[in-house]
Order: sequence, then C-alpha cells, then structure tokens
Amino acid sequence: MPEVSDSTEPQTRLTTSVPLRWGDMDAYGHINNVEVLRVLEEARVRVLGSPARTGLPVGEPLVPVFNDLPEGTQALVAEHRVRYLAVLDYRDVPAAVDVWVSQIGGAGLTLAYEVRDGHDGSRCVVAETRLAFFDEPSGRLMRLDAAHRELLSPYRGDSPFSR
Amino acid sequence: MPEVSDSTEPQTRLTTSVPLRWGDMDAYGHINNVEVLRVLEEARVRVLGSPARTGLPVGEPLVPVFNDLPEGTQALVAEHRVRYLAVLDYRDVPAAVDVWVSQIGGAGLTLAYEVRDGHDGSRCVVAETRLAFFDEPSGRLMRLDAAHRELLSPYRGDSPFSR
Amino acid sequence: MPEVSDSTEPQTRLTTSVPLRWGDMDAYGHINNVEVLRVLEEARVRVLGSPARTGLPVGEPLVPVFNDLPEGTQALVAEHRVRYLAVLDYRDVPAAVDVWVSQIGGAGLTLAYEVRDGHDGSRCVVAETRLAFFDEPSGRLMRLDAAHRELLSPYRGDSPFSR
Amino acid sequence: MPEVSDSTEPQTRLTTSVPLRWGDMDAYGHINNVEVLRVLEEARVRVLGSPARTGLPVGEPLVPVFNDLPEGTQALVAEHRVRYLAVLDYRDVPAAVDVWVSQIGGAGLTLAYEVRDGHDGSRCVVAETRLAFFDEPSGRLMRLDAAHRELLSPYRGDSPFSR
Repeated sequence: MPEVSDSTEPQTRLTTSVPLRWGDMDAYGHINNVEVLRVLEEARVRVLGSPARTGLPVGEPLVPVFNDLPEGTQALVAEHRVRYLAVLDYRDVPAAVDVWVSQIGGAGLTLAYEVRDGHDGSRCVVAETRLAFFDEPSGRLMRLDAAHRELLSPYRGDSPFSR
Repeated sequence: MPEVSDSTEPQTRLTTSVPLRWGDMDAYGHINNVEVLRVLEEARVRVLGSPARTGLPVGEPLVPVFNDLPEGTQALVAEHRVRYLAVLDYRDVPAAVDVWVSQIGGAGLTLAYEVRDGHDGSRCVVAETRLAFFDEPSGRLMRLDAAHRELLSPYRGDSPFSR
Repeated sequence: MPEVSDSTEPQTRLTTSVPLRWGDMDAYGHINNVEVLRVLEEARVRVLGSPARTGLPVGEPLVPVFNDLPEGTQALVAEHRVRYLAVLDYRDVPAAVDVWVSQIGGAGLTLAYEVRDGHDGSRCVVAETRLAFFDEPSGRLMRLDAAHRELLSPYRGDSPFSR
Repeated sequence: MPEVSDSTEPQTRLTTSVPLRWGDMDAYGHINNVEVLRVLEEARVRVLGSPARTGLPVGEPLVPVFNDLPEGTQALVAEHRVRYLAVLDYRDVPAAVDVWVSQIGGAGLTLAYEVRDGHDGSRCVVAETRLAFFDEPSGRLMRLDAAHRELLSPYRGDSPFSR
C-alpha cells in the first residue's frame, strides 16, 4: 500500500539507535504512534546535537549542528510527516533509526528518517521533519549558515515520500 | 509561508477542546511538538469515541465510530501530517480543536484537524491522520461499514494541505 | 490493606478536576502509574498557578502561589509519595482531585492529594509532594514568604499517610 | 537535608542504565520529576523483565521475574516513594540505575532504586516501589512464588529511606 521509495542508489545515512520504553506502549499493547515521534526527536538530537543551552551533553554528536546554533536560536519543528508501515513492538533492544537530509535551503532543513525493528530489522516507520531556525530575540527565521550546510551535505538523500 | 487552505465554503466541523498540561512543555518553554500529536489523539477520541474495549467511557462521543468497532478491530494510525503554524503556549484554558473528515474510502479514513489557541483563537496547527481499521484475529485491514460512513458524512471537508 | 487516614474532622480542600487522556493508558489498559504523577502535577498547577515565567495563563489560580514566585525562583519537587488504592480507568469525564496542605514550614511546603474516579467517585490514589523553593541565581533554598503562607493556611489538613 | 542511608555493608545491587530523552525535560530545562518515574519503570523492566504478554523481548532480563508471571497476572504498583536529591540533567550518556529488593513478603515486593548522573556519578534520586501481583481472572492478589523469591534473594538490601 505505501509507496515508499526504496532508492537503488546508496545514500549516506546517519545511523543511530533509540531504546524504547515499556511506557511507550499504549492500550493496544504496541509502541504508541505519538511516542514514535518522541523516538524521532531523540534520534535528531543524538545525531545533530542537543539544541544549544538545553541539556548537558558531554560528547559530540555525529554532526554538530543543533548544539552549535547561536545563542537565542531555536530549532523549531515546522512540519512532520510520518508513515507507519508496521506496528513497532516494545523490545529489549533499541530501535534502529537512520537519519538523512532530504532538503536543505532557505531557512529550512528537512530531515528524513527510517525506523527499523531492532531485532528483525523490519522497516516500521518512515518520516520527514521540516525544521525552521528561529531567532528568538529578533523574532525572525534564520538561514542555516554555510558551515552547517557543509557539514550536512554528505547526508543528502531522497525523501521517503517521493516515488 | 505555509499554504494552508482557508476554504470559503462553510464546512461542518466537529469541535472539541483539549486541556493542555504544564508537563506538555519542553525545554523551550512551549507545548512540545510531539505532545501536539497527543492532543490530536485525544481530540479524535473525544469526537469519535474510545476504541472498543479500551477505557471506561460513560457518555456517548459526538459521532460514535471508534467505540462501536467490532471486537478485535483496532483503529490504527497509518500516517500523520502535522504543520505547526505558530507556537502553542500552555494556557489555563483548553486548546480548541476542530476535527473533520477529509477523505473516506476503501479501508481508510482520513481525519483533518485545526488546533487553535484557547484564549486568542489563533491557528497554531493543522494536521491530517490517515487511519486504517485492522482486524487482529484475521490480520486483515477492514472497510469502515456503511453505517459508520453515513455517520461521518456530514463532516466531510477539504484537506488542510490542499490549495 | 492501605491505612489511609479518613479524618473525621472536616478539612477545607482545594478541589479541581483533571481530564485524563487515552494516551495515559499503558499496555495493561489502565491509566499508567507514572501518568498519575502527571495528573498530580497538573492539579498542583491548576490550584496554585503556573510557576512564574512558564506558560501563558490568562486567569487566576484558586490560590495564587506558584505564579507569584519571585523571578528566578523554581518550585522543585523534593519528594513524592503516592499510594495507588485502585486502578484508575480512562474515562470521558475528568478525574476529581482534592489538594490540601499537609505541612508548611521552613523552606518547604507539602501538598497532599486525593484522586477520585470522575464517574463513581471511588478513591483511587492518595499522595503527598514535598516542594522546595529554589532561587536559581543564588543556588539557595528559599522560605515561602508570609503572604503565601497566609494564603495557604485555610487549606491545612492531615497527611493521607498518617493514621 | 535528606537522611538517605549510605549503608556501610556492601549490598548486591542490580545495575542497569537508562538513556534519557531530550523530551524528558520540562520548562525548567531539567529532567521532569514525573519522567524520573518513567526511568524507574524502565529500570524495573530491564532488570526483572517485561511483564508477561507485553512487548516482544528477545533476550533474558538479569533476573527473570516479571516476564515469567503466570498468564493473567499483572505486576501493579501499589506505592511509590521518590526523593529527589539533585536535579537530573539531560545527557547524551544514560543515567545509571541500581535496583535492589528492600522488602519481600506476603503478596508484595518492594524494590529500591538509586539513580546517578551517567557522567559525574552524582546521586540524584533514591526511590522505592511497592509492587503487588494481581491475578486478573480471580481479582485476587497473589504471593510471589518461592522460585521467584529465591531468584531475588541475593539482591536484598536496606531501604534508602531507613536510617
């Protein structure tokens, strides 16, 4: 049913894993669809860093973008699109999450994700998040600067929602 | 920036309100984008009922669909699309949520939403959720039956993502 | 089994109600024990106000304490004690929550709660939260000032954990 | 201020680690006190197993108790006591959680926990959870059987709330 791209070209993806929690299950006994978004949020932070001035990370993210934003700049979610291909079960092994950049330009950055069962590797979720960078003091949207765009450029890939 | 339809034709919408929680805020001090999906879930349940055999509701939902599904049938989220138009602030008044049907057919049902600030009425979020009805015993997707489709027909409207 | 006090003296309690969410249920199909703490947090905020500089409330809480703290002062939870007397079911009516002050003195304030099913009134949870007021700039705990103690004095009552 | 036991006798503790999530932070910018309970829940499940017929674990827990309960038996939380010694910060390293058995007998089992910052090892939270085993079909509380008590016996230790 879902026409999710299964690109034949190899793409460079940022790969992380996000442990699930028993409490992510809902009354149906599966990982709740809303908690899947929480898993995507956590994957973003693990890969691109904890937004500046939140949390106390001790290491470096795979691609230091969010943790390196100017003071007062927030990485805001402008849009999510999430397709659930299969039920995600609570496991004692983390879910595998690939993250890549499906669009970059102007003020925005669109991240794409694929979430796989940590045990059998089955694809459970594909998603995209369009982010905007908001400068709180001025109330203006900001462009991601050239250095950050450069850092992200190796991880460009197709949208999971394009054919 | 977002091309959200502002349909000139009057649409019949199901209107509910969902109280926010202080704990819905994240480290940015706004309602977290993931919790907005929780608010949409709650709006769905208030409007269409608590899925059969979950919870102990005492009243009737506005349009009794979910609470009236056959035993063993789950209403599963197949896809979400959520656009954040403005930051949603935690208030001591509930968020206003309109729900309508933007598509119905085959095994699926697509609900559309508009979330407004409960105080100043500003539009903060528009979203769509495509639902599938899954019969657990047989492992098959099911059509929504004619009676339920009839119940939903007055609430047909445009997708908030169509121009 | 639990020896919860059922004081014979009438106590003046602050009464509020907190709507439950379908997503508060866990895989057992009941309101998850952790989400009960979220309900208590929300009851605290509804009764005593949204801590200064968080959220954008438009009205006045029943007893304006948290929303009136000096800038930089955080109301921190120092200890929770929560006893689950009966399973709390997800309902389409809010849970009823009584809040009162079981101890006040020095830097601290202890709130007590009783959570009842919103439909049949059965007692489901009793709890206490000891709060400390922390002045972030100085890194010191602060006393609640005389005016706030005065506001809270009509709502003194026994601990639900005393015999 | 808190008189937490710092037992001089070595105790055998079950040690696990629970990754935090950016979304566990609240508007104060720290791990929210309610989410700490979610971390305790996850530690319980990692150590004693996913309650029978929830989730799809692939491995064995450290001490297989919850995953080995008879069909229809639920491990219910009867009481929590949680003391917050220091603010817990969101880190890119998991929180360290020790779990041990502070009481066992009759129908109940009390687990004790210590949560430490995953980076600097500072003690942030001590807690206890009293669990009851509920047989849903009969509506009766059950004793933990001898085999499970035996499994847990090496992990007996003092309550963190005793002097």
